[in-house]
Amino acid sequence: MLTHERDFARTLARQAGAIMLEHFRTGVAHRSKGDGSPVTAADEAINQLMLESVNRTYPGDGVIGEEGSSPATSSGRIWVCDPIDGTIPFTFGIPTNMFSLALVDDGLPVLGVLYDPYLDRLYEAAQGEGASVNGQPISVSDAPLSGAFIALHGAQFGLLDNAAVMSDAITQGMRVLALGSIVYESALVATGQITACVFGGQSVWDLAAVKVIVEEAGGVVTDLHGEPQRYDGSVTGGLISNRMAHTALADFMRTHVAGLGAG
Amino acid sequence: MLTHERDFARTLARQAGAIMLEHFRTGVAHRSKGDGSPVTAADEAINQLMLESVNRTYPGDGVIGEEGSSPATSSGRIWVCDPIDGTIPFTFGIPTNMFSLALVDDGLPVLGVLYDPYLDRLYEAAQGEGASVNGQPISVSDAPLSGAFIALHGAQFGLLDNAAVMSDAITQGMRVLALGSIVYESALVATGQITACVFGGQSVWDLAAVKVIVEEAGGVVTDLHGEPQRYDGSVTGGLISNRMAHTALADFMRTHVAGLGAG
Repeated sequence: MLTHERDFARTLARQAGAIMLEHFRTGVAHRSKGDGSPVTAADEAINQLMLESVNRTYPGDGVIGEEGSSPATSSGRIWVCDPIDGTIPFTFGIPTNMFSLALVDDGLPVLGVLYDPYLDRLYEAAQGEGASVNGQPISVSDAPLSGAFIALHGAQFGLLDNAAVMSDAITQGMRVLALGSIVYESALVATGQITACVFGGQSVWDLAAVKVIVEEAGGVVTDLHGEPQRYDGSVTGGLISNRMAHTALADFMRTHVAGLGAG
Repeated sequence: MLTHERDFARTLARQAGAIMLEHFRTGVAHRSKGDGSPVTAADEAINQLMLESVNRTYPGDGVIGEEGSSPATSSGRIWVCDPIDGTIPFTFGIPTNMFSLALVDDGLPVLGVLYDPYLDRLYEAAQGEGASVNGQPISVSDAPLSGAFIALHGAQFGLLDNAAVMSDAITQGMRVLALGSIVYESALVATGQITACVFGGQSVWDLAAVKVIVEEAGGVVTDLHGEPQRYDGSVTGGLISNRMAHTALADFMRTHVAGLGAG
């Protein structure tokens, strides 16, 4: 299924990785966007390459990219891309950042590719066909939330009071990583290394590929309330987990999302 | 100065890096030590290599290694080594971990080497001679603590209530990374990428090489109270910063260290 699209996504991921490696060093030049987040020449070059590639190969499909988009024309499909998730670690020369691309059909990610060019790890999943890294099947852990390794965001950002979430998680005995890339952190859930991540943002390019990869690896991805959501516009954050811990994670988050709208 | 020791440390760092690369993958086998922290065959092999190398080359010197030590005999010098700082990320297959080695003379680190084998970055410093990565001089930033990127520990551990420290830092507008390796994080201070780190532990192998490398790059390393300390036994945590933010960091930490003994 989607054989042509999988080859297309894989090729694009490797091209993006080559651009990342070309620019990656301690102290990558960057400017601040309107929301204060950084963007580099590499983010822009990858986004441009992705836009042009989709428009040429799948002219009926739309694109939502962090650095530029184009509307769908004839199909209901959208390619959702974060050229470099983890631009902050990228600018520091920390290799916890990844290229992320999903094909979303009627609001649901049906294909996802992530690429870590520093370790040459290509993550792939298609709906109903499992998830893999470099062709080797991957699966989530069966660890409970109690005492879990969990990835959280270490700054005030998005929908959550991250100071409160962090404090609660640590107080309850969880062990928190904050690597600066929700995609990189979610890939650790997909390979069974950590138990869960919490994402407080609203940008769909941070979650679309993660949704299909983590779920095809046996995990669950929902909005912050633990409910399903669409992946073709703004999202209401994300809870990303191995399946085992998901109910406990949604319970843990309940007080922190009480002020938000319904999922 | 210390030309022979520098060559020795550099060679050992590259040998350690080769062992790290040989074992590194998603999901490195490990066992838990008495304190609950993980140890891998790579940690043990590097510690053994380091012990044997020092005993053969500098038989009068002592060794303090995370996985095994030997007392000093005739000299006042001690080699202080963390075979892999960041064993947790190492076991996950996250490349934010480093080899760390210092030569400590009468309680003061006079030579330090860190090695990141994944990106082939060799950090070096000798007292009074500056700090470098792969031979290129490095220096800290001049950023203030306000709005700073800072590295903190994301679990209850050591001398601090890390839930409270995390929460305060985020509430005050700092942007927190928790990469799982104080050595890796301190190297980011030394290269000017982040402003500061807080270390709540008492193990000298986590800080000895960092002390000389960060200070030779223009920064400051003190105990949790902002005071000098010796590096030949247990430490009272560490504040690691570019010089600019150090007073503000000690002030920020004051309430969090109020219950501890004097520095």
